[in-house]
Amino acid sequence: MTGQETEIKDLGEFGLIERLTKEFPITNKETKLGVGDDAAVLTFGEKDVLVTTDLLLEGIHFDLRYVPLQHLGYKSAIVNFSDIYAMNGTPRQITVSIGVSSRFTVEHIEQLYAGIRKACEIYGVDLVGGDTSASVTGLVISITCMGDVASGEEVRRSGAKPTDIICVSGDLGAAFMGLQLLERENSVAAGQKDFQPDFSGKEYILERQLKPEARRDVITKLKEKGIKPTSMIDVSDGLSSELLHICKESGVGCRVYEDKIPIDYQTAFMAEEFNMNLVTAAMNGGEDYELLFTVSLTDHEKIEKIEGIKMIGYITEQGLGAALVTRDGGEIPIKAQGWNAFN
Amino acid sequence: MTGQETEIKDLGEFGLIERLTKEFPITNKETKLGVGDDAAVLTFGEKDVLVTTDLLLEGIHFDLRYVPLQHLGYKSAIVNFSDIYAMNGTPRQITVSIGVSSRFTVEHIEQLYAGIRKACEIYGVDLVGGDTSASVTGLVISITCMGDVASGEEVRRSGAKPTDIICVSGDLGAAFMGLQLLERENSVAAGQKDFQPDFSGKEYILERQLKPEARRDVITKLKEKGIKPTSMIDVSDGLSSELLHICKESGVGCRVYEDKIPIDYQTAFMAEEFNMNLVTAAMNGGEDYELLFTVSLTDHEKIEKIEGIKMIGYITEQGLGAALVTRDGGEIPIKAQGWNAFN
Repeated sequence: MTGQETEIKDLGEFGLIERLTKEFPITNKETKLGVGDDAAVLTFGEKDVLVTTDLLLEGIHFDLRYVPLQHLGYKSAIVNFSDIYAMNGTPRQITVSIGVSSRFTVEHIEQLYAGIRKACEIYGVDLVGGDTSASVTGLVISITCMGDVASGEEVRRSGAKPTDIICVSGDLGAAFMGLQLLERENSVAAGQKDFQPDFSGKEYILERQLKPEARRDVITKLKEKGIKPTSMIDVSDGLSSELLHICKESGVGCRVYEDKIPIDYQTAFMAEEFNMNLVTAAMNGGEDYELLFTVSLTDHEKIEKIEGIKMIGYITEQGLGAALVTRDGGEIPIKAQGWNAFN
Repeated sequence: MTGQETEIKDLGEFGLIERLTKEFPITNKETKLGVGDDAAVLTFGEKDVLVTTDLLLEGIHFDLRYVPLQHLGYKSAIVNFSDIYAMNGTPRQITVSIGVSSRFTVEHIEQLYAGIRKACEIYGVDLVGGDTSASVTGLVISITCMGDVASGEEVRRSGAKPTDIICVSGDLGAAFMGLQLLERENSVAAGQKDFQPDFSGKEYILERQLKPEARRDVITKLKEKGIKPTSMIDVSDGLSSELLHICKESGVGCRVYEDKIPIDYQTAFMAEEFNMNLVTAAMNGGEDYELLFTVSLTDHEKIEKIEGIKMIGYITEQGLGAALVTRDGGEIPIKAQGWNAFN
């Protein structure tokens, strides 16, 4: 940090909220009243309201030794937008609550909010409230996002049917490999003065970890092509975990082909450097914020024409279980080895 | 804790969520889809949606040495409902996010949720989502509450006009004195084996601190009498702080009479025992969750007939500032000395 810094206690809670929120414009006509009252007022008329929330805790979900606060703010917002898109909705408003220990200055928190503001601008979302508090240790970020969807148009996890095609956007495992890289460079840097990590050629996996995007574009493309997925979820905990969610909620099984899972070459390169199993990284890595969805077999041709969507398998009867089909035609049961905050 | 205990890591995040939320019924027709997808689906038709959120952190907002987890859960929900009532709305749904350190077992968290469930039952609110995580230290509770209000019927902080009457429900300062009592008994108990605090005759102030209620009944009575407040806020940070919010947002001043401020005799008794100024406790104590509101002078007779509502002063032009009129007719400027988490 450079320049003049302000201790949070000098501003007080209301002063801090005012300072943090004054630059957020209200852009949605659905936002009738924003920050500054007991509650925000939203109005949706004929639309349904979607609500999702995420709690991010320092030392569990992020490590400020290698995550810039502005990126953390951006990502904190994005992960919520991603949940709304995963319902086939449009994010409209967020509330942001933060708990801040005394080692943070107002300027630190402003960096965090600058990232949130950027995400709000890019995705057309209004900040409409929140809560601000001291914390005993570390930074706490709790964001709730409201979105809307035309009545009956939401896509749940529960609608997948046998023979449906399983699709995923983008590529998988990159955010996880980005995290491995950041952790390695951080541990190498420990104790070394003026250590400069070399990230050249690794920009993509770093960006996937530090500044992910929510796949609004995928939702738009699906609508343009007249495709409504039968089920959908965003990949936050890892492909295995999300596939099992869809199977459980839909009462179905699945087959996913190892050689169809989309993986970027930087991800593959890093997995080799780390001597890690690439498919394991892609299946269990998490934080990709891609969309995993199923479509009816009749949408096969339409899906093929959308760039950046990969068909990776199909839905089966429940009794067949969930399995990964390996390159040699063998089957490995899919188990949830996604990220678990309690381990 | 007695009986068999389960470590949270043995259940995992999804297991914990399932265990914690399975007993919450969906009771509102506005709740189309609850826990278990990327987002909840709410539908309000012609109503406006209200959203409020509160973040509660161990060591800042609560002390588990003297706050039972079930009461904490109840209160965590109530403080959010209170914000929705303070907008003249009806709470309908909540999301609950928690961060839990390893010293908590599943049974602990179930106690917390039992309190939340009780509050939801009594106030007719549905649990529709949330997030669950490990935390490095202590307990983190973040609740977001959605409510509805007929379009145009919300009551903001900004509508007070000169000559409006200032009203408050119930009595003030009791929750603050309850906290003083709990803190004293806890420090006396420290190091004394088998210490039994004597709380007899102090039940009211303890209940006000540990298990407050939201004033749904006041909103109902006002509607029955055909009164729509011109402004309203709930008393969470203290009367002084809330009065200043209304004055600032409405662009007005106020006069509040010291001898009109409603105070329970147990509160007065404890203030004497602690050698504290009673009016200071009532003005700045906070956590009363009463409703502070203003009504037009023409509603004077109607308000008088409502039991449990006290008229404590009136709104003035902004230039006159906000002041407390003392028993001897003097004026003391009102300053925000409400609770500040950052001090």
